[in-house]
Amino acid sequence: MNQIITISREFGSGGREFGRRLSENLGFAYYDQEIVQEIAKRTELSERYVQQVMGHRPISSYPIHIGRSFRMMADPHLDQSQNIYREQCNILREMAAKSSCVIVGRCADYILQEEDPFRIFVYADMPSKVTRCREKNYEKEELTDRELERRINAVNRRRADYYEYCTGQKWGDRIHYDLCINTTQGTVKGIAAAVARLFLTQ
Amino acid sequence: MNQIITISREFGSGGREFGRRLSENLGFAYYDQEIVQEIAKRTELSERYVQQVMGHRPISSYPIHIGRSFRMMADPHLDQSQNIYREQCNILREMAAKSSCVIVGRCADYILQEEDPFRIFVYADMPSKVTRCREKNYEKEELTDRELERRINAVNRRRADYYEYCTGQKWGDRIHYDLCINTTQGTVKGIAAAVARLFLTQ
Repeated sequence: MNQIITISREFGSGGREFGRRLSENLGFAYYDQEIVQEIAKRTELSERYVQQVMGHRPISSYPIHIGRSFRMMADPHLDQSQNIYREQCNILREMAAKSSCVIVGRCADYILQEEDPFRIFVYADMPSKVTRCREKNYEKEELTDRELERRINAVNRRRADYYEYCTGQKWGDRIHYDLCINTTQGTVKGIAAAVARLFLTQ
Repeated sequence: MNQIITISREFGSGGREFGRRLSENLGFAYYDQEIVQEIAKRTELSERYVQQVMGHRPISSYPIHIGRSFRMMADPHLDQSQNIYREQCNILREMAAKSSCVIVGRCADYILQEEDPFRIFVYADMPSKVTRCREKNYEKEELTDRELERRINAVNRRRADYYEYCTGQKWGDRIHYDLCINTTQGTVKGIAAAVARLFLTQ
């Protein structure tokens, strides 16, 4: 049976890099942006639009995890959000069936629950999230630490919202994960190499 | 430098067994009840009394982590609680200085923070905590699942209270741990063996 590892992660925690390195260490397939690309292809929507829908909970909608309602069908935006979610489910299941893999985000821990995935949540303290964001993206924007913290919190709130909309579960609540990893200490490279050893037989 | 691993754990999660097995896998010293025994010896109080004090936050007390106050000195129970905490700190520091070790509970993650311990929190879902408690202790008492759940929650609330009293931090808040491990799936033996591999160099 394929081994499926899902990574949920706080923005700025290095969770994406962790997932990629973990997949390299284990020789597993790695899926992240590929999921958005594939949804865009199948729905004939732009990648940017798909990304945007997946990053936001539709306003005043009935939670997707409870199912469709006639009321939702009357709203084309909500219907599109449902279509994207349906494709997301199909694609994740196809990926999981193909080979052992590491999947970052996209509610894969919930959608693939019948495949018994190993569910990891990656987090860090705020100063290290700020430092990581500065190293990666925001240095040109000259944001203050306070502004950057607000942006980080806003992204994480949207992730939490979208996750709850899709799953009915609280994002980051430890009970929904097998392992929660703090990347504040050490390097993501080192942590990924160590965690890969969890999956090796002695 | 000695490697210090601290284990905080939900009652019923198998955290104590996990700590013991982890120490065996790594060839580290293991401290748990030994800490209570040593405090009892040094303070000339009974082990049972020490255990009781360490398991309960004193009523309407000034948090211990903020320090002594003259008001506290007037209350012999609080003063004894302070004495026990002081011995707890001394003993933990002596243990950490002696050799690499695994320490279960006793706010060791906080007290030994200057030794840069690797801080693990062990948890599980309620049904598996109930099952584990039945297997270990409570089968003769014929408690219903609901009663057993209430007992488990009560012990965990006391642990949270005592931890907060000593440290000013929220017990179980992931940010205070390097790794949070869910023992709901798999065996504690298997999980401990896997986690031990985290500490081996490749």
